[in-house]
Amino acid sequence: MEQKRILLGHGSGGKLSHDLIDSLFASYFDNEILRQQSDSAVFALDTKHMAFTTDSFVVDPIFFPGGNIGNLAVAGTVNDLAVSGSIPKYLSCGFIIEEGFSMDELEVIVQTMAEEAEKAGIFIVTGDTKVVDKGKCDKLFINTSGVGEIPSGRIDIGSGSQIEVGDKLLINGGIGEHGMAIMSARNDLNISSPVESDCACLNGLIGDVLSVSNRIHFMRDATRGGLGTVVAELVKGRDFGIQIDENKLVQDEGVRGMCELLGFDPLYVANEGKVLMVVGKEDAPKVLQKMQQHPHGEKAAIIGEITETKAGMAWLNTVIGGNRIIEMLSGQQLPRIC
Amino acid sequence: MEQKRILLGHGSGGKLSHDLIDSLFASYFDNEILRQQSDSAVFALDTKHMAFTTDSFVVDPIFFPGGNIGNLAVAGTVNDLAVSGSIPKYLSCGFIIEEGFSMDELEVIVQTMAEEAEKAGIFIVTGDTKVVDKGKCDKLFINTSGVGEIPSGRIDIGSGSQIEVGDKLLINGGIGEHGMAIMSARNDLNISSPVESDCACLNGLIGDVLSVSNRIHFMRDATRGGLGTVVAELVKGRDFGIQIDENKLVQDEGVRGMCELLGFDPLYVANEGKVLMVVGKEDAPKVLQKMQQHPHGEKAAIIGEITETKAGMAWLNTVIGGNRIIEMLSGQQLPRIC
Repeated sequence: MEQKRILLGHGSGGKLSHDLIDSLFASYFDNEILRQQSDSAVFALDTKHMAFTTDSFVVDPIFFPGGNIGNLAVAGTVNDLAVSGSIPKYLSCGFIIEEGFSMDELEVIVQTMAEEAEKAGIFIVTGDTKVVDKGKCDKLFINTSGVGEIPSGRIDIGSGSQIEVGDKLLINGGIGEHGMAIMSARNDLNISSPVESDCACLNGLIGDVLSVSNRIHFMRDATRGGLGTVVAELVKGRDFGIQIDENKLVQDEGVRGMCELLGFDPLYVANEGKVLMVVGKEDAPKVLQKMQQHPHGEKAAIIGEITETKAGMAWLNTVIGGNRIIEMLSGQQLPRIC
Repeated sequence: MEQKRILLGHGSGGKLSHDLIDSLFASYFDNEILRQQSDSAVFALDTKHMAFTTDSFVVDPIFFPGGNIGNLAVAGTVNDLAVSGSIPKYLSCGFIIEEGFSMDELEVIVQTMAEEAEKAGIFIVTGDTKVVDKGKCDKLFINTSGVGEIPSGRIDIGSGSQIEVGDKLLINGGIGEHGMAIMSARNDLNISSPVESDCACLNGLIGDVLSVSNRIHFMRDATRGGLGTVVAELVKGRDFGIQIDENKLVQDEGVRGMCELLGFDPLYVANEGKVLMVVGKEDAPKVLQKMQQHPHGEKAAIIGEITETKAGMAWLNTVIGGNRIIEMLSGQQLPRIC
């Protein structure tokens, strides 16, 4: 039986586009707002302040251990909204599809997005589909943008303006899992590894933590560029330093093995379900406990602190007793990781 | 002198990404919200209801008479927001760039976006950049998503629920200009034509019209699929019909010539600066006048009306005295037109 494939006409805005929207997107993403099917989604927010973010996903390959480009696209934007202190509410979704792409694979991806959105309690309310001629894009790219409601009192979390010397750094589990899962899935490497992507929506875990502490001074999800890039960015030009203890960093055995084999520094390998939090030191123990009670935070750990010394610098206290500066990467460690 | 080009590292999230953001995006799009440079833009809206929309742009070629992919990406999303009755406020912008793309061309495009945003009075507040290896996308794709504020009383405009028999159909000028401008710019056609894209932000014109009439019962910008697709969509399953008078349709001489030469039906050729409005018949004259006073509406015309007969159908009264059904296109008339 011949496989159904995406045609240029599916991106025309005409009848084939409508059929694709009705049979696939509208059916899997179904909700009251999407059902309006007008040029824009129209809805009311319950807060005055809102967060708004966008991310395009070009991951290669589009299917990998632990997920596919679909749940990655949902989780990536949900997490960007959540770390800004907002409650993620609504997502848009823009597909750029290569002519000839398998309709079955597209359906699996759309279904995964719908499931991830449902788990996260958010709605995909508006979308767009473009099809480009064969060879003019690599299978499928997805953009998701999102809006979230920011309760008063959380407006400054994203800026890190409340960070104080002595604050503790927490992360909700092991690093480098997404990056190494993608590497293991690339066709040109013949690696069989049990590493799975950590790809997950963290708004539940973050909401739990915010319910027990009002001393969350900063949050960021450590995606492209890994934990190293997040701390290097955070400390740049600031009047404090950041110290990370290497022996506190959790690392899956498979991730450690692959990083050693391939020569990657796990500090810079991408995660898609890890959030770094800077927490007032009095609250660090209870925040840690709350994280560990959540399925996405069982291996949470306190990994370092904000220091008065070495302002503007982040460094790693290594397991062998030395220390090394954590700088921003100047090149690309792993292209098309997300 | 060697041309500066986009490297994979510009999409890494590391130092090269930061340099690109600082030197290009943050510098051209500069505004208070963007300057926060956190994971999400954070801002307050002045209305309870909002509109939210997304569009990806894959136009080929990226430079064409009358504009480039940059102003197209801004205008496309601004117009989707405006026709929903909202006041467009904030845009996100996600770039997917092919490795090796010219840095100079990227700068021209970013500058065009900044100028278009300024003209429209909106702000680009958050963004994302991905770079894919050479050959894995066609130069540059841009996604813009946007949010707008909906004043109370305008929430239903996008749905068309207030359309009544006898309402007049208005459009703010000639049809088919964007599509034919793109065709003339394609390298494989050796056409020299003076046709320019009508690409423009219509929020100013729409705001003017809404200030003189509260009988705007529906608006939609006639983009991909042209005016024909808009009316075919609008009438589908409804208890009214739509009649368009071919002799009222404005057509630039160049557009008419190209359509005849190439065999395109101008009714289905894309526009990027044309809005179809359905207006209560008492208000149609003053709405027409207001449109004509705006630079983007000088050639505005009343082109048809909502009928009681032939419910669920749209048809064209042709210049030769016949009439033909306006159906949705089943294939792709022009791929990658936006």
